[in-house]
Amino acid sequence: MIGFDEKKYLEIGNNTVKLKGRVEEITKEINKDGYKNVFLIGSGGSYAMFLPFEYYMRTKSTISVYAEIAAELMACGHNQLGRDSVCIFTSTSGTTQETVEAAAYCREKGARTICISGNADVPYAKEADYPIINTMDDFSAADADYILLYMLTFSLMHEHGDFPEYEEFCKNLGKLPAALVDVKKQCENKAEAFAEKYKDETYHLLTGAGTVWGETYSYAMCVMEEMQWIRTKSVKAAEFFHGTLELLEKDVSLMVIMGEDELRPQCERVVNFAKKLGFTENLNVFDTADYSLPGVEDKYRRLLSPIVMTAVLDRLSIQLEAKRGHSLDIRRYYKQMEY
Amino acid sequence: MIGFDEKKYLEIGNNTVKLKGRVEEITKEINKDGYKNVFLIGSGGSYAMFLPFEYYMRTKSTISVYAEIAAELMACGHNQLGRDSVCIFTSTSGTTQETVEAAAYCREKGARTICISGNADVPYAKEADYPIINTMDDFSAADADYILLYMLTFSLMHEHGDFPEYEEFCKNLGKLPAALVDVKKQCENKAEAFAEKYKDETYHLLTGAGTVWGETYSYAMCVMEEMQWIRTKSVKAAEFFHGTLELLEKDVSLMVIMGEDELRPQCERVVNFAKKLGFTENLNVFDTADYSLPGVEDKYRRLLSPIVMTAVLDRLSIQLEAKRGHSLDIRRYYKQMEY
Repeated sequence: MIGFDEKKYLEIGNNTVKLKGRVEEITKEINKDGYKNVFLIGSGGSYAMFLPFEYYMRTKSTISVYAEIAAELMACGHNQLGRDSVCIFTSTSGTTQETVEAAAYCREKGARTICISGNADVPYAKEADYPIINTMDDFSAADADYILLYMLTFSLMHEHGDFPEYEEFCKNLGKLPAALVDVKKQCENKAEAFAEKYKDETYHLLTGAGTVWGETYSYAMCVMEEMQWIRTKSVKAAEFFHGTLELLEKDVSLMVIMGEDELRPQCERVVNFAKKLGFTENLNVFDTADYSLPGVEDKYRRLLSPIVMTAVLDRLSIQLEAKRGHSLDIRRYYKQMEY
Repeated sequence: MIGFDEKKYLEIGNNTVKLKGRVEEITKEINKDGYKNVFLIGSGGSYAMFLPFEYYMRTKSTISVYAEIAAELMACGHNQLGRDSVCIFTSTSGTTQETVEAAAYCREKGARTICISGNADVPYAKEADYPIINTMDDFSAADADYILLYMLTFSLMHEHGDFPEYEEFCKNLGKLPAALVDVKKQCENKAEAFAEKYKDETYHLLTGAGTVWGETYSYAMCVMEEMQWIRTKSVKAAEFFHGTLELLEKDVSLMVIMGEDELRPQCERVVNFAKKLGFTENLNVFDTADYSLPGVEDKYRRLLSPIVMTAVLDRLSIQLEAKRGHSLDIRRYYKQMEY
């Protein structure tokens, strides 16, 4: 595969899995001390990555949880944030300004902070109540972050008495790095064909639901818009039918991002709508159900849709970069100027 | 003003204000019985309209509150929804399928339901624990709904001990119907000029924050996309800087939807960014601070941004309809077919 270092990817993923002990040390202590709620706080891609974990905790546990945008939280506050809150942050560099500031803000409010960082040697990690050093880099940040967040949030749910199959689930997480390499290989032809067909397309309509909504939102904004300068609209599948549907015409690229959770039928409804209109020429469904996960038990697939989807969409990014001759690394404005 | 029946608008708005007694009858009873949290449940435009009230309750009271999309809630549930929940819905026709079903779903879960309806004679209103009949119609639905939701949520906050200035605030709400007619007149020239300049524009980038984020989201989706078939991207101002900013070029229409709440500086940051780049030709700021509200005390302006913004944007819709020769009432698919 172009633009992919399999050995390095596996090494980083497998190292993340080894952080299980550190994660449980933290969750056991937090659970013993007691807490009222959990805040998942990020910006852009990291906010989007927290969304499925808000979904899991809200639908598969009794823990009260809120996913929040860092800059908004600091500007207007939140009436449930306080001494009894546990706040979780993640930053590959450990220097993402809004994340660093939000972690300090939450500590000021008396909350406990769990700060996941790719770098131990930054104030963000050093000042955290509970730092977790995950040696991810930009290349594999999303996947390594996902695995850690699965362990962390499902361990919290387990300690809380909500997820008895935690140990077995973690064994399956251990199979993921290799399984995701396999997924990347399985989707390569589809990703390449999409990139070739749409290399000159200037607008894509993306819809997703449930645990893959975060991936839908961030793929549109953080990859297609930020890294490829292509216009997008991302809309939740349920909301698609409350306005955006009127934009659908034969020549519009409609990308449906589909997972295997309870909200899958909402994506299927969009697909069926496009098919009913005969608008299938530019309908592209990215469906986690299309990919096998070697070594992973079927019963856990429904919980793994976002990380499978990120593996698929990462290949799409690499292929778009290649076919469009537009590096994923160039920016017009971000880090090019002060604003 | 074209497309505006001032007498009818004032009559509907003033009738809504008179529902204060009915609202307080409900909130006093609910408060006396006690409750754990409030759910604001809608779809599309009604979901978007609930977002500022989630914001107010989260930042100006200690009430636990969740704004939820009806179809999502029913598909995956919510761990904080139960017998101690108060669920609020609104439907002009009283027959919006997802809203009607979600209200029934919440009653099944044992929650109390407050159902705002433009129509008393529908099961949705009849089966509600607390129906509120607000004689709105499509013409003035948003404004009449807003006034009622202000009374209802701020009365809940008041009964909860969080908003002592409630009675004074309601006196100011009573001035709103006439003040909003004035706002519509004040913004008319700006709306007409925008519609004339952009009548052939095929894509707009909209950003907003805080209490006007709901208006930003729904104006893009429910008006520009649904009623005018124009492509849009709506993005929260804080998130704009995490990807979408790279789309900004001189010829891109950037609409900044700006209110007077705590998140106003996030919109100002977007405006300053565009100005710094010299991209002012297609920068259009819709700012509630530009409009006087005759009879309304200045100290309540910061709480009224979304309803002021909807008055402004309604004029923009009417002007877009006129200049583009595209009726706000035609649909390609919605209610034209089953899906």
